[in-house]
Amino acid sequence: MTRQINSTSNQLIKTIKKLRNKKSRDELKLFYVEGVRAVGEAIETKQDIRYLLFCPGLLVSEYGNQLIENYAQDGDSLIEVSEEVFQSFSLKEGPQGLAAVVSQKWSSLDQAKNKGGLWTALDSIQDPGNLGTILRSSDAVGGRGVILLDQTTDPFHPSSVRASTGAIFTQEIIQIELKNFIEWKSNVNIPVLGTLCGDAANYRDYHYPSDIILLMGSEQKGLNENHLGICDAIVTIPMEGNVDSLNVSVAASIILFEIYHQKKMSNDRGN
Amino acid sequence: MTRQINSTSNQLIKTIKKLRNKKSRDELKLFYVEGVRAVGEAIETKQDIRYLLFCPGLLVSEYGNQLIENYAQDGDSLIEVSEEVFQSFSLKEGPQGLAAVVSQKWSSLDQAKNKGGLWTALDSIQDPGNLGTILRSSDAVGGRGVILLDQTTDPFHPSSVRASTGAIFTQEIIQIELKNFIEWKSNVNIPVLGTLCGDAANYRDYHYPSDIILLMGSEQKGLNENHLGICDAIVTIPMEGNVDSLNVSVAASIILFEIYHQKKMSNDRGN
Repeated sequence: MTRQINSTSNQLIKTIKKLRNKKSRDELKLFYVEGVRAVGEAIETKQDIRYLLFCPGLLVSEYGNQLIENYAQDGDSLIEVSEEVFQSFSLKEGPQGLAAVVSQKWSSLDQAKNKGGLWTALDSIQDPGNLGTILRSSDAVGGRGVILLDQTTDPFHPSSVRASTGAIFTQEIIQIELKNFIEWKSNVNIPVLGTLCGDAANYRDYHYPSDIILLMGSEQKGLNENHLGICDAIVTIPMEGNVDSLNVSVAASIILFEIYHQKKMSNDRGN
Repeated sequence: MTRQINSTSNQLIKTIKKLRNKKSRDELKLFYVEGVRAVGEAIETKQDIRYLLFCPGLLVSEYGNQLIENYAQDGDSLIEVSEEVFQSFSLKEGPQGLAAVVSQKWSSLDQAKNKGGLWTALDSIQDPGNLGTILRSSDAVGGRGVILLDQTTDPFHPSSVRASTGAIFTQEIIQIELKNFIEWKSNVNIPVLGTLCGDAANYRDYHYPSDIILLMGSEQKGLNENHLGICDAIVTIPMEGNVDSLNVSVAASIILFEIYHQKKMSNDRGN
């Protein structure tokens, strides 16, 4: 029988609310996912779902109800909650009555070493929405995932999870200190591509290898001297007008789609 | 002598706080700008600044102090506030002690009719951060501005203003009902380009005219049948992976930068 929770002071409900804080997410190695589509992605991509929470009064979506029906219950993981309880932890304005608590999945650079492909490395990105948007774009171009250096924001922050539209489940996520990344980079043969607002090669003129790491700096400052020192090439996105830079997720996406376009052109030519 | 306000219950301070709400912004036709850089842009681009607010205890930036010194005061517009007062209306975590209240500037399609150029029309965009990011990208490619149809979010929302990084001051902003836009469009010779996730021409293969309106739909649903009906051409951004669409500001920017690239290539060839 499905477990039921009708009290907002239930310990599990309190824990779910705590997942809004990075400290709790880090300790528990869990994160919170909300909405029919996002939860559907979690199930379809076979995430380690600790709790699947649904509220019959709110869950009108046919697809959402189907997900609940098909969900292979193991013990206590499927939980029916009252509307009051769902509203208490919901992060949406019009909650759809479906949410999940999912295990964080981290990869390591050792795996990356063996597989190559297209990666995006991010240092000091502060806005989780930007990080989630980059995960989404990386997924869209068949990228492997993101390498988070030093002070980059939490990919499992609710805003990142939401902005990723499911890419949080499919993209590999690596966290590593910059100095270890530099050491790793000196041992492998994967070029690092930096981006600069200013004097550098036009991103349209560069020929991107199939194994490459795109390195992006913070929203405020871009790449610093340390970063530029490890770049094998540096490109820029020419622009005019009054603004002197682009949103970091936009800049990353423009280059990711240039890389993707070149790869497809190359494949079409049978190379 | 510079006007001073040291009480959070001062009427003007209350009004500034009210500018967080769309209703007050609409009524007063004003918006709130914060930070040394944003306020600097407002001054440099000669906006109608109603109030320039600074807090000596917080304003450590040399450039910021220079702005205050150079600011041509007219009567009551330059206001020195205490740290407590500044914190009371600040929207930043580490306030820089400089903010402004600026007049909203709207353009109309009649002006657009005479000038052509590159426009981005947006219908039902809900997230002000996305709108601000599109303003920023449009500025970066020399675009004219945005045409906001029907239910699109407020460009003068603090998140849009912040995301625009100054483009809110330089881009033309037009608001018009979709039915009036359709009527206008039938009278002028500017093609509307729609975007679709699915079967349409690759955005890289289309040749963009110099006068063009890029039309983007909502974050959730993209363009609807009404929108597609008024499009002279429809393009798609090919992608793979798990996600089935891009963030709307990313998608708009990718196409804006393709248009910009083609224009530059054409100019370089002397066309």
